[in-house]
Parts: sequence; structure tokens; C-alpha cells
Amino acid sequence: MIFMSAELSKRILQGDVRAAASLMSRIENGDAKAKAVLRTLYAHTGRAHVIGVTGAAGTGKSSLIDRMIAEYRRRNKTVGVLAVDPSSLFSGGALLGDRIRMRDHFLDDKVFVRSFATRGGTGGLSTAIREAIYVLDAMAKDVILVETIGVGQDQLEIAALAHLVVVVLAPEMGDEVQAMKAGLAEIADILVVNKADLPGGDATFERLKALFADGDISIIAASALRNEGIQSLLDSIDKHRTRSLGNGSYQRNRLRLYRQEVLSLLRERLIAEWEKRIGGAALDKQIKLIAERRTDPYSAVDELVKKIGL
Amino acid sequence: MIFMSAELSKRILQGDVRAAASLMSRIENGDAKAKAVLRTLYAHTGRAHVIGVTGAAGTGKSSLIDRMIAEYRRRNKTVGVLAVDPSSLFSGGALLGDRIRMRDHFLDDKVFVRSFATRGGTGGLSTAIREAIYVLDAMAKDVILVETIGVGQDQLEIAALAHLVVVVLAPEMGDEVQAMKAGLAEIADILVVNKADLPGGDATFERLKALFADGDISIIAASALRNEGIQSLLDSIDKHRTRSLGNGSYQRNRLRLYRQEVLSLLRERLIAEWEKRIGGAALDKQIKLIAERRTDPYSAVDELVKKIGL
Repeated sequence: MIFMSAELSKRILQGDVRAAASLMSRIENGDAKAKAVLRTLYAHTGRAHVIGVTGAAGTGKSSLIDRMIAEYRRRNKTVGVLAVDPSSLFSGGALLGDRIRMRDHFLDDKVFVRSFATRGGTGGLSTAIREAIYVLDAMAKDVILVETIGVGQDQLEIAALAHLVVVVLAPEMGDEVQAMKAGLAEIADILVVNKADLPGGDATFERLKALFADGDISIIAASALRNEGIQSLLDSIDKHRTRSLGNGSYQRNRLRLYRQEVLSLLRERLIAEWEKRIGGAALDKQIKLIAERRTDPYSAVDELVKKIGL
Repeated sequence: MIFMSAELSKRILQGDVRAAASLMSRIENGDAKAKAVLRTLYAHTGRAHVIGVTGAAGTGKSSLIDRMIAEYRRRNKTVGVLAVDPSSLFSGGALLGDRIRMRDHFLDDKVFVRSFATRGGTGGLSTAIREAIYVLDAMAKDVILVETIGVGQDQLEIAALAHLVVVVLAPEMGDEVQAMKAGLAEIADILVVNKADLPGGDATFERLKALFADGDISIIAASALRNEGIQSLLDSIDKHRTRSLGNGSYQRNRLRLYRQEVLSLLRERLIAEWEKRIGGAALDKQIKLIAERRTDPYSAVDELVKKIGL
């Protein structure tokens, strides 16, 4: 279905799922028209609570998200989910399988689930996710869950878009948490030991408690399979929101994100403009000189920059 | 040990391992002085054969590289190895273990091994690897092996720096190769089924043969453990080099890489310059307007760009 920009914008503000899906496809394909719609939606954003959920494969992250969605719905909150597949040569069907499970919620029109996967693109995955968050926010979703795998620069950037990050761990990771401490401290607000009823669950939970005893990171034991610990998790998320709004850290985090966004959009614009001004012929000439080892890439850039009077 | 630039450059051209390690640390830390040294080294590059070796965890990639190094040494070639750890929250000690194995070759001064891992940086990992390749090339290494994990945008960019890419697969991946076909076709020049003597090895090999019957991709069965198939792999790599030099694809690939490099250096320079010209106060003002939802990020960029007369 093809919508005109104004129509698309209006429908999204009304919560229309098909209009949102259509705009997200444009965002994923890097369609320039998406920006025009996002511009009009922007005034209606800033209300949703954006929660990053990240964890290695095998931690049961997607099942946990399933349970979180159900509990948020029970609490009468509308939910959007963005699931990010890492660009990988080696992804067979496993990740897709995760997505299919979440379709249980597809019949509930208060839940919107979309998965993003880019391969070989311009590294614009975190831009696409940022824009998709705006779409869900403008649809008036109360909570937006952003699921990532936690590996690679892209994934860390995406986690940084959230107001709060939940890292999901598995019982058998007990021995590794010491080595992961610095990484976890950097990114996590809440640590969940999923499958906490399995062997090693208690030990991993206690080890995390000890490791982060002196910090602000909450540790939760849960079991997505048994639907245990999900309420504690949601309560902990709410408490974090209240606290961070109270002490100003929420607002500071927002300003940091706006700055990043403006800089990233600014870079896109400046690069496009200056590549046009430098022109293809001048570039081709320098590349030929490099191939002949008559110049080096650094001196070539000096030449090109000089040409446009910088 | 601290070297002056000219001294560093001279020593690297003589193959000095400590000087090379020192420059690589500067590269990894994004030290601007590294560029000055690279500039002087550049004229001495362009001779090494750069081979990407990529594969998922558990395929025995590092053991295979060990065997490749030994065989290259037997053939009297000097070897450099750059191993790229993905930035990950979840990397415990496993990756480091891989690196330690390669130290068998540390006593051989014709083999240089360096591992790179960046976390939370500016996404400059592929730039660092490109520069590290120059260093090894200037040291007159005949062969440079670049090991990556094959997941994430960074890793795909790094694989694209190689003249030829070897993808390592394991026997148990037989069922998944169909799903991976497009990804493999895009990146691989040679596919190696490692551990080919294990159950599923023959079937995976035959399946790959059938899947890529009509293409230019070579399929090799090998066992790093038994030291089998390594000679075929190296012969296949040599044949690929000869063929690609003969039909001009090697040269086209080089030009494409030079272009990417110049554009990426150019972007760094332009961005730094224009951020300076726009100034912090104008940026802060727009960010405040965004936070108050009195503007949106796209209009904010329009304003900033107008300010510098674009």
C-alpha cells in the first residue's frame, strides 16, 4: 500500500499499523521521503519509554521479551518491539525463528513488532532504528523494546539509543561475568539472569550481586519459561525511570542523544555537499596517482581539500 | 620504546618487529602521529598479498591459520597476521585463547602476529586494519592474513580490504549453507570445509560443490588438526592471484579500495573542519530547541547548514 506523506503521517499518529509498517520499510531502504514524514511526526515524540534488551545468543532473550510484552499488556501499556539482527554471513534460520515466536502478539493491535536486518549497507542501521523509534513513539506506544545481540559497533550504538538497557545473561555464564564486568558496567542498567532455575542460576546471580554490590545496577533473577521474575523486572524498570527523571540523568541522556543525532545528520549533509563540489574527475585523478604510488592517500586528500578552498 | 617518526619509518622498512608493534599501537589508539609515518611508508607498499580469513566461532579458523602460516614458511614466504576481535559485551576469554595459540610462531621472526580489538570507539576499526596492513606490507611481508569473525558491519568492511577472502566452514553447517549462499557468494573467493574428516564433512563439501558449481568460487576440504588440505588451499590461493592479475580483476579491486580509502579520509577531514566552523554555541542552541520540541533534528540541521553558507 502506498500512502502520500501527509496521509502517512496522519495515519501513524492515529496508530495505524499498516502505515507504520510502510514508513519503516522506507526507513530501512534509506528512502529520502521518509525524512519528510519523520519531520512532521517529530513534535509528537518524546513520550515513550525506550528500553534496550541485549544479550548473547542462547540467553533466551526473545522469550523474555515475549513475557515482558504480555506483562506490559496486563498493565494496560501499549508496546512496540524493534528487533535488530546483526549483519552476518553466517546467520541461517535461527534468528528468524526468534522473530516468529513474537508473532503470538501479532493479533494484539496494541503490540507492534518489526525486525531490522541490514547487510553491506552504509552502516546506517542505528540511524534506521532511531527513526523507527520515532515512528513507534508517534504512534503513542507507551513502551518501546529494542532487542539487540550485543556484538559489534552497530549493536552498541543501538543500545545507546535506549533510556535504559537490560542485559540478559544465562546461568552457565557464571565463570565469565568477571571478565565481562567492565563491559556490563558501561552499558547495563539492569542485569537479568534468565533461566535462573537451571543449574548455575543461583551461583551466577550471587556472583553478579557481589560484583556490582557498590553500583546502581539492579540484578534480577528470572525464568521466561516459567514466567517468573517478570514482574520484578518491570517494577525495576519503572523504578529506574522514576529515579533517573528525579535526579536529572534522564534529561542529560536525552540531550546527549539529540546531540549525536544532529551531528550524524549534519555529517551526512556536509559529505554529500562536498563530494559534489570536489567532483568525480579530481577524485579519479588522485586515485590513479595512488595506484601508481606517485602519491599516498593522505597527500591525495590534502590536494582535494585544497581544491575546495579549505 | 618510543621512536621518532623518521626512525620508526626506517626501522619498519628494515622489518623491525618492535618498531612495527609501536606504530600499530599508535594506529589502534588513533594517534595522529601515526599518519605521518604511514605517509612515508606508503611508497613501499602494494606488494603483499592480503588474504582475508573469516568464519564463525567454532570452525577452527585459528588452527587453520596456524597451519597456513607453517606452510607459507615452508614455502619460504614471510607472513603477517592481523586478528580482529569483534567489539562485544560478551567476549570472555575464548578469543584471547585463540591468539595465544598463534604464539607458536612468535619465535619465528619472519612471522608477525597482532590482534586488534576496539570497543565503543568511533567505528574506526576498519581504518586501523587498513593502516596495519600498510605497516606489514612496508615490512615486506609476502603474505598478510587478516582474520575476522564474519559478523557485523565492521567485519564485512575489513574482509573487503583483502585481495582474496577465504571463508571457513564446519561440517555441521551443511544444513545451513543453502541459507548462507547469497552471503557467501558476495564475499568468498575460496570456501574451506575445515574438520572435513568429521561426520558431515563429505556431505557439506558435496553440498557446497553443487551449490557453487557454476561460479568462480573454489571449494576445499581440509583438516587443520590432521594438517590435511593446507597445500591445496595455498595452491588455490596462488592460482586465484595469478588469474585475477591476468584478467584485470585484481587491479579493479585495488582501485575500488583506493577510492574508498580516499573518501573515508576526506570525510574525516571535512567533518572536523565544518564542526569547527559551525561552533559549539549554535549546536547547543539547536539541541535545546529539539529538547523542547520547538524544532526537529532535520530542521535543526537545515539551520546549521544555512549558517555556514551551504
